[in-house]
Amino acid sequence: MNLNEEDPRTEYFYCWQSCQTSEDTEECEAACRERLDEQLEKQSQKEQGGEDQDEKPTSNPNPYYFPKSTLLNRFGAEEGGYVVLNSLTRLYPFLRGRLKNYRLALFLTAPGTFVLPYHIDAESAFVVSAGKGTLTFVVKNKKESFKIEEGDVIRVPGGATTYLINDHSSEHLGLVQLIRPVNIPDLFEEFFPGGYKIRDREDYSISDDVESYYSVFSNDILEAPSIEQLQKALGQQRPEGMIIKASKEQLKALSKQDTSWWRKLVPWWSSEDTDLKFNLQSQKPLHSNNYGKFYEASPQEFKQLLDVNVSVVIVEINSETMMVPHYNSKATYLMMVVSGTGWFEMASPQFTLPETEEEIEYQEDQGEQSGMYTKVSGKLSLGDVFVVPAGRPVVFVSRNNDEGNNQNQNLRIVGFGINAPNNIRNFLAGQEDNIMKTMESEAKQLTFGKEMEQLLSNQKQSYFVPLSTQKSEEGRNHSSPDWLQFNTKQ
Amino acid sequence: MNLNEEDPRTEYFYCWQSCQTSEDTEECEAACRERLDEQLEKQSQKEQGGEDQDEKPTSNPNPYYFPKSTLLNRFGAEEGGYVVLNSLTRLYPFLRGRLKNYRLALFLTAPGTFVLPYHIDAESAFVVSAGKGTLTFVVKNKKESFKIEEGDVIRVPGGATTYLINDHSSEHLGLVQLIRPVNIPDLFEEFFPGGYKIRDREDYSISDDVESYYSVFSNDILEAPSIEQLQKALGQQRPEGMIIKASKEQLKALSKQDTSWWRKLVPWWSSEDTDLKFNLQSQKPLHSNNYGKFYEASPQEFKQLLDVNVSVVIVEINSETMMVPHYNSKATYLMMVVSGTGWFEMASPQFTLPETEEEIEYQEDQGEQSGMYTKVSGKLSLGDVFVVPAGRPVVFVSRNNDEGNNQNQNLRIVGFGINAPNNIRNFLAGQEDNIMKTMESEAKQLTFGKEMEQLLSNQKQSYFVPLSTQKSEEGRNHSSPDWLQFNTKQ
Amino acid sequence: MNLNEEDPRTEYFYCWQSCQTSEDTEECEAACRERLDEQLEKQSQKEQGGEDQDEKPTSNPNPYYFPKSTLLNRFGAEEGGYVVLNSLTRLYPFLRGRLKNYRLALFLTAPGTFVLPYHIDAESAFVVSAGKGTLTFVVKNKKESFKIEEGDVIRVPGGATTYLINDHSSEHLGLVQLIRPVNIPDLFEEFFPGGYKIRDREDYSISDDVESYYSVFSNDILEAPSIEQLQKALGQQRPEGMIIKASKEQLKALSKQDTSWWRKLVPWWSSEDTDLKFNLQSQKPLHSNNYGKFYEASPQEFKQLLDVNVSVVIVEINSETMMVPHYNSKATYLMMVVSGTGWFEMASPQFTLPETEEEIEYQEDQGEQSGMYTKVSGKLSLGDVFVVPAGRPVVFVSRNNDEGNNQNQNLRIVGFGINAPNNIRNFLAGQEDNIMKTMESEAKQLTFGKEMEQLLSNQKQSYFVPLSTQKSEEGRNHSSPDWLQFNTKQ
Repeated sequence: MNLNEEDPRTEYFYCWQSCQTSEDTEECEAACRERLDEQLEKQSQKEQGGEDQDEKPTSNPNPYYFPKSTLLNRFGAEEGGYVVLNSLTRLYPFLRGRLKNYRLALFLTAPGTFVLPYHIDAESAFVVSAGKGTLTFVVKNKKESFKIEEGDVIRVPGGATTYLINDHSSEHLGLVQLIRPVNIPDLFEEFFPGGYKIRDREDYSISDDVESYYSVFSNDILEAPSIEQLQKALGQQRPEGMIIKASKEQLKALSKQDTSWWRKLVPWWSSEDTDLKFNLQSQKPLHSNNYGKFYEASPQEFKQLLDVNVSVVIVEINSETMMVPHYNSKATYLMMVVSGTGWFEMASPQFTLPETEEEIEYQEDQGEQSGMYTKVSGKLSLGDVFVVPAGRPVVFVSRNNDEGNNQNQNLRIVGFGINAPNNIRNFLAGQEDNIMKTMESEAKQLTFGKEMEQLLSNQKQSYFVPLSTQKSEEGRNHSSPDWLQFNTKQ
Repeated sequence: MNLNEEDPRTEYFYCWQSCQTSEDTEECEAACRERLDEQLEKQSQKEQGGEDQDEKPTSNPNPYYFPKSTLLNRFGAEEGGYVVLNSLTRLYPFLRGRLKNYRLALFLTAPGTFVLPYHIDAESAFVVSAGKGTLTFVVKNKKESFKIEEGDVIRVPGGATTYLINDHSSEHLGLVQLIRPVNIPDLFEEFFPGGYKIRDREDYSISDDVESYYSVFSNDILEAPSIEQLQKALGQQRPEGMIIKASKEQLKALSKQDTSWWRKLVPWWSSEDTDLKFNLQSQKPLHSNNYGKFYEASPQEFKQLLDVNVSVVIVEINSETMMVPHYNSKATYLMMVVSGTGWFEMASPQFTLPETEEEIEYQEDQGEQSGMYTKVSGKLSLGDVFVVPAGRPVVFVSRNNDEGNNQNQNLRIVGFGINAPNNIRNFLAGQEDNIMKTMESEAKQLTFGKEMEQLLSNQKQSYFVPLSTQKSEEGRNHSSPDWLQFNTKQ
Repeated sequence: MNLNEEDPRTEYFYCWQSCQTSEDTEECEAACRERLDEQLEKQSQKEQGGEDQDEKPTSNPNPYYFPKSTLLNRFGAEEGGYVVLNSLTRLYPFLRGRLKNYRLALFLTAPGTFVLPYHIDAESAFVVSAGKGTLTFVVKNKKESFKIEEGDVIRVPGGATTYLINDHSSEHLGLVQLIRPVNIPDLFEEFFPGGYKIRDREDYSISDDVESYYSVFSNDILEAPSIEQLQKALGQQRPEGMIIKASKEQLKALSKQDTSWWRKLVPWWSSEDTDLKFNLQSQKPLHSNNYGKFYEASPQEFKQLLDVNVSVVIVEINSETMMVPHYNSKATYLMMVVSGTGWFEMASPQFTLPETEEEIEYQEDQGEQSGMYTKVSGKLSLGDVFVVPAGRPVVFVSRNNDEGNNQNQNLRIVGFGINAPNNIRNFLAGQEDNIMKTMESEAKQLTFGKEMEQLLSNQKQSYFVPLSTQKSEEGRNHSSPDWLQFNTKQ
């Protein structure tokens, strides 16, 4: 499957997710399932039809935008799912900078469920985007637990065997996860001590597919006299899926108050220690007014983020409002929409956007002609991912699309800032922190001419400003399904 | 354009630069311009002549030496220019180590000029190699200014919108710039808030080419009621070129005393802060005698260099003198000549110098046969760049070439030391810090035989020593135009 | 020579090494030499026989296991040798993570010998695996010496000109070396100030091959009046080989007590300093019982390891014993066997084990299907190397093979832990530090079913446990010569 082809299982995942707030969840889920079966059937016919498997996929015309359908459904499950953004740098080698060390995932689980224990060969941080539950991890002979709710950020140390429950009676639990692999920059793997049955990727039937990692060891190992017959346990009946129903008693036993024995996740050369959990939305916003809020936790203040070396961001923008043009001095942001709809626009240098190797070579021969910018933009709703590299002027816009029925829902985005320490957000419009207002009159005049001074002094709002109430034609177009653009400047 | 082909615009740039100290600057510049036109005409005919565009360029036979003509004229301008060393690691994948994170540029501006504001997605450091002026940058709601003169080192933080003036009445201003991209290791981009007209790369006519980054945003954004009509400013008449004439009043208003509000450019985990500017030549030289001086500012002492993680070096060598053979224990130096002439010689392991992929593979099959060295050497004058990797024995020689008329001018080199912290310069000849003198007699004898002890004790000078007064035949050859060598040892 | 083909010179090296403890060393060495001559003859005939040189080597079926025969004999010598593990990441691009910055080598020298001075463009650390001697290095105008014996760890700073003696009367000296190149991630080079004659790689005859790095400089340099005629020394008769016989007087003069002027090898931002040498086996083992010992020196405690950023490990496992299944939370270990025999087994995710580019692409299209593990295993004896990435469950087993005559010899492994700071070893069996025992009963039950609780409580031993005394059939197979496996799970 290539990055641009929609995976019906991923579509199913989002369909299922949308049912959790539906009045008749069961009926809704049944409809999702039917749609999935249809599409799998269609896909299967297409493949048997002998179509050319070598057919090159049309490359994604916008390398900074990854609609939800391009995410991979890594562990399908009836009771939720776990979708992962593909390795950006394998498909887009020119994104080979700092992004190569990070992956992004979204975890959604149904009410009354348990996620089976596993560890990954990666450091990670979770941001809770919806719901309630308890997250627990085990390291050596210790166990660490956290009650989690919306706005919580939890750092899980690399290699910790982790499991979680959703003990809410009716809401699903949503977690955005940043993953920093420790072995190979863009790859990580889940390791399950107990295996389970999963739905087959081909026909979606139940089959015994996910193994226990114990199962690879030879009998010499598993039957050694002093560690006893470990292989016996592996012969048991396996649960179905990575996310399974748990009884009320089990959930109650696994629902815990916060522990905090692990206070040393900061780098080894630091003398400080810190909790692994904090609530970002209970902090003072970094930028805010009546139209929106921008929360950011930097690794300088929240030392638990030092080791993954990112800041964590939650942006909340009222409907019909934008966060004004700005650029980050040195941080690159990896953003995922968690509710609401809207779009983003970004100025990107032309020379970094070649699509093919030939174009890359051509541009290199031309010596990186500078000073030409392209508009990069994308429509935003739950699960969509976009990248904002350092230095690129960007705008986020919240606007209800015509399709949705949640009128006036705010656009909410969870983001991770790579290379965030000492990053500064330079605004290019508005009253406060606008670098154009900061220049001397003479510099403004030499750069823009005489009118700029006046124009700038008229700008009274800062950070978040409402859009014009009479929607422009262009604005309307933004809501149409085929709106995704990748044009040279208009 | 490949790295080995001379760009007539780059040649023009250096021609223009040489006119700044000429008696009749205008006439000199006119001659440069005429030469440029001729060459552009010739180039254009050649291209129309249908020559094979796929013709492989002869690869640079010396991957550690980049004559000035191979630098790219990134922003051509009548009033100066900005030339950038191509990404080394794209053309020479085996230089893929620490060098990949750095680029090198040279900025030259005419008297009485203003460089338009722009930011780059990179950290950078400037070393002033000639002239006087004021450098200003703006971050958020603050402005930082520095009076600059020869020997000054200024750290400009990533993403700072920067502009500068040359307010001297007759001298050009020269700046060597080290650039560390923050997004993609070997790429960076200039972002201009106000566009300007540039000379076309093809026919060198004036055309409106460099855009304002504001211009990519849709009208929804630029006409939002509370930020006012930003696009109006973009409709103004644009200035011609990135470097423009400014009036005396404007220059006076933009000429500033040093400010120092920004004292925290050291890494976020350090508790120290520091000025962004210091003068390297007013420090005590690290190595010096009557024949030369070696200045170095390490990131350990000058914390403003910690974040770019380089040391800054200025070497000044009298004519007919060499800096004796030495190697760096762990730092790799990227050097650019800023005045004088001479050459360098370096011992390089043979196995790291394959030119083609086949040769690379062959050598890998042979298992990296070690213990064979090749002489790498290059003739040096203004704008030439060379790389001295860690561990490689190297010599710098100052000698007037036969062509120049500046007899007895010292060779001056500005350099940047990558991985410099804790680097040690081991000398291989001379009285002081010569590691051969430091060995026990028994070790010397087992290694070199008995005569070495006596030979070493005769060496009375250190660091910089004069060449033989009777120039050897070989020495003469070094001054001939086709001298650049890349031989196996003689 | 590709990684899988055995180099007869490497075989000779190990044969020679095995003679050092033989009763008749001379006769044994003669037999090794005869075998070498035969094989070189055979090889030469094969090459002249016009066999297809382009023939693709069968790729190594197990990318985490490098039998001794695949190491390269970088400097052949009569009096010992220096074998180097090829760059892992050039042959296995998917090992491109942190491993790319490290190389591994083994140094063995005969009694009464001197290793000629040289420096490398790399940081390094030696672990003494056998014998006694003195290691000396020279930096600028200072000399640092260390008496060395089994279990010593010595950090040699990058670029230090190093030499060493084996002044024992009868034992060879063995050193495992970790190398971290400072220029190019996976390449380093030896630089010899004095040249020497080496055995030719083709016909193994003596020829003058390894140059002095002085020899590349032109006469202008070497004859400059104030540094005297350096080239004279280079005209002397060169010694034969990198490792040469030294007289008792010379050895005595070069045998030194420990010095310790260099106490600042920790990173420049640290305020601490430290000795460059310590004895790992005199520390308290991290994990131990009657069946084995696991020693580890982390960079947090032994600051001299900070700059190479590794921990150093020595594992000693009694015969017929295993170190129980465990995984490292974030460190990857590069291990080399220094005595004894046995095997290892490791669970590795299937998707990271593609052998060809096509397979890599195929797996990428499949979206990194997770949850499937493969057994990676390899037979172990002196000189064999294996890699244990973070997160992968692994077991080390000590068992005498049928061939050897050193019955009941312990398996000893020297290892280096990359990304070791804050690493935690999670055990998957046994009484102590077993993460399965740490989970709540409810989590265990949901994951493994009800029997697990009982099974775990029966495990009384920890870390090292004896194997079953009645060897299983499978166990026997492990000792057969063609045992190396790379199967999917049984």
